[in-house]
Parts: sequence; C-alpha cells; structure tokens
Amino acid sequence: MADPLRIVLVAPRNPLNIGAAARAMSNFGFTQMRLVNPYEVAFKEARSAVHSQYILENAEVFATVGEAVGDCSMVVGTTAGWRRDLQLPLYRLEPAGELLREHLKAEKPAALLFGSEKFGLSNEDMSYCQWLLRIPSREEHGSMNLGQAVAICLYELRRDAAAAAQRLEEMPTASAEDFERITALLLDLLDRSGYLNPSTAESSELKLRRLVRRLGLPASDAVTWLGIFRQILWKIGKTPSA
Amino acid sequence: MADPLRIVLVAPRNPLNIGAAARAMSNFGFTQMRLVNPYEVAFKEARSAVHSQYILENAEVFATVGEAVGDCSMVVGTTAGWRRDLQLPLYRLEPAGELLREHLKAEKPAALLFGSEKFGLSNEDMSYCQWLLRIPSREEHGSMNLGQAVAICLYELRRDAAAAAQRLEEMPTASAEDFERITALLLDLLDRSGYLNPSTAESSELKLRRLVRRLGLPASDAVTWLGIFRQILWKIGKTPSA
Repeated sequence: MADPLRIVLVAPRNPLNIGAAARAMSNFGFTQMRLVNPYEVAFKEARSAVHSQYILENAEVFATVGEAVGDCSMVVGTTAGWRRDLQLPLYRLEPAGELLREHLKAEKPAALLFGSEKFGLSNEDMSYCQWLLRIPSREEHGSMNLGQAVAICLYELRRDAAAAAQRLEEMPTASAEDFERITALLLDLLDRSGYLNPSTAESSELKLRRLVRRLGLPASDAVTWLGIFRQILWKIGKTPSA
Repeated sequence: MADPLRIVLVAPRNPLNIGAAARAMSNFGFTQMRLVNPYEVAFKEARSAVHSQYILENAEVFATVGEAVGDCSMVVGTTAGWRRDLQLPLYRLEPAGELLREHLKAEKPAALLFGSEKFGLSNEDMSYCQWLLRIPSREEHGSMNLGQAVAICLYELRRDAAAAAQRLEEMPTASAEDFERITALLLDLLDRSGYLNPSTAESSELKLRRLVRRLGLPASDAVTWLGIFRQILWKIGKTPSA
C-alpha cells in the first residue's frame, strides 16, 4: 500500500533540516515528503546529501499549504506554543500520535505540517488544520530544531508499547541447576579458604545459596563463573594449607 | 534536586550534533552533558552556538568512558544494530524508557551513552554498560543522526501518557440547546427555500436534527453558525416568493 502520511514542510530554510527530516523519515519508514514554498537553494543542497536520497528525489513541491494538503482527510499542524488563541484543538504528542495512527491504519491520507525554522506555522497555515499537536518540551524553551521535531513525531507514530514489551535480544538466564552447581563450588572454595566457620556451616550454606540466586546470571555467564571457581579451587588444592 | 541523568556523548565529531544534543536537552529539561574524548574543534564550535549555552558551558569532558560513568548506578548504551552478539540485554526504547524513568525517579544517577556519528559505541564502550537500548528504526536504515537520536530518547523519558490524555487547549463543545437552535433555524430556512417537501416534513426534521448533531461543533462556532443562518433567513424574508 502507498504510504498515507504526507510530511509537509512549510517554507523550510535550512538544507540540513530538510535532509534531517528526510533521514528521520527513512529511519522510520515514511516516504511521502511535501515542501511548500521551500527556499530554492536549501532544497537543492538538501537533494545533494547522501542520506535518504530517494525521499528527497520524490518530494513534491507546492506553492501553497492548501494545495499540499488537498488530498488529505486529516490535516494536523505542529506548534511549539502553549496557547495563543489558536482556535483549534491542541493535543500533546502522545494522544495526537494515537489519533494519527488510527487514521493511517485505515489507510486514509493524513498530512502532518511543520512550519519554518524561524516562525513556525502562520495563522493562515493553521487555518488548513483540523487540530494541532505539541511536543511536550519545556515551556521556557519550547522551540525545537525542525529535524528533531520531525524525528520525534515519527518515532511517536512508530511507537509500539506492546511489541516493545519483550527484549530484542533474549539472554537465556541461568537455570536452578547452574545456580546449585555454583553454590556447591563456592561452598567448597570458601570452606578450603577458611572463610566458613564450621559451627555455622549449615546457615552459611543457606546464606550463600540465596546470595548466588540473587545474581542476575545469563546462562553463558554461569558457565564462565563455574570455570573460574574450578580454576581457583584447583589452585587452592595445590597450595599447602597454612 | 540535581538532575540525575548524564547524557554522555562518546567521541562526537560534528559540532552541529553536539549543539543539537544540547538543544534537545534544554527542550526537555535535562542539564548534565558529559563528553568523552570529543573532537576538540567540534566542541569549541558547538560552544559558540547560541542555543542551550548553559548546558555546553557546564558540560564535563572525560578521557574515558569509565571515568564519565563512574558515579552512575545505571549505565545504558544506545545502538542502531539489531544484533551482533552484544552479550548484553537489548531493549527497544519504549520499555527502556520505563526502566530509566524508574531509576531516575528515585533520584539515582544514570548515564545514557551515545557513540560517535560514524561508528557508534565500540565494544569497549559497551563493556561499561549494563544494558543497551535501540530506537525502533527500520532494519534497512537503522542508523540515526546523533542529535535526532538524543532528542527521541529524551522525549521518551519525558513522555507521559496519563498527563497527555487531556487536550491542552480545551474547546467547549456546543450544547444540546445550541444544536436545537441551529436545527430550528435550518428547518425554517429550508422550508422557506423550498427544500422541504411538506408531505415528508416530519421525517425531514428528524434527518436534519441528526445531520446537525453529527457536526463537531465548538460552542463559539455554534454562535457563528446561528448568526449566519439568521442573516440568510432575514435575506430570504425580503425576497419576494417565486
């Protein structure tokens, strides 16, 4: 299916930002970039960058916001302001992402608008939007770099709390058997080292077992530790007792 | 309380990236930047940037990763790779953010490490980490811009699904009374315009009421629509019937 999300940069000025937006799009698997009235030189320079070439080559240029969002059934503006009589519903990015994800899941086209580096979206730009979103940055320094703002919004759209629940790299953890073998070796080792008091040996064993169980041990590390303790035990065995 | 999170950039090369990382820190309210073995020129240039000056001025420089994370009880590395025998637990950013937030909430110091632009974290850098996190970028283009990666991680740390549930800018919606007044005016208007068929007038009224209720209407807009319809009605009243 064609990517239903259009990332619309309105009047971007800095080629590095256009390139950074394209790179973030590529990182998160979005392909449809639209530019409204970009600074010509900036767009040319951005196109010569190595990253995410295919996105910039296919980017469409429009003269007005109206044309750029014409085919979209959801049009969302981004703003760094907290309130300035926006006359539009304003959501934080977290629930805004949810609304956008829902719309895109139904393969309905949506536009996400980012204003120019210096001024953000104008009141006229915003009049094309159904609602606005705000990245939850600090009130004292709300204004974000354009490339970073795009990256954060796209991350939120790809965020998946459910898929994320499991570890990416599973580390098989040590089994009870591994723990028991380590405990036994350690007991032997501590006994021979004179660490254990024979009169409290039994409670020491329990303490030691719990001590070992509290280790967060991947299975492969258990093998390494067994080897280490065996080696030390072997060395101690060769040492004449004091 | 002092900010317990240290953002550690290992061997950064590009002053723009150091500046972008500092800006994102300022946006999301983090203050402790540490640099390991930065490219001297890059650090000097970044310091001359206007944004987030205070963060760069207080940034501490270390010769090794070991020294930079010495006071941290949680040390987390970032990686773009999916798997390369990392020998460390690897989490997606979503659950990783949860683990970090928990740790920081207890005001315990933690370090979040980002590698150099070209090579990422080395195996030696990673040997100081307890676990790794990965931003869920595409497998085919996983490598992210350093400034964007920092921004996304900090956004995840500040993410607050609960606080985000409500709209930032509440728009009081139209009341049932508003809807009823609009419906009545419209009925009158359509009647006088000859839109309504007298024989089906009753079912038309129901249809019209439902049509109006389906409008997503902020309270202030309801007033505007009432004014518009009244004006049209007035104009029609002055028109001689055909």
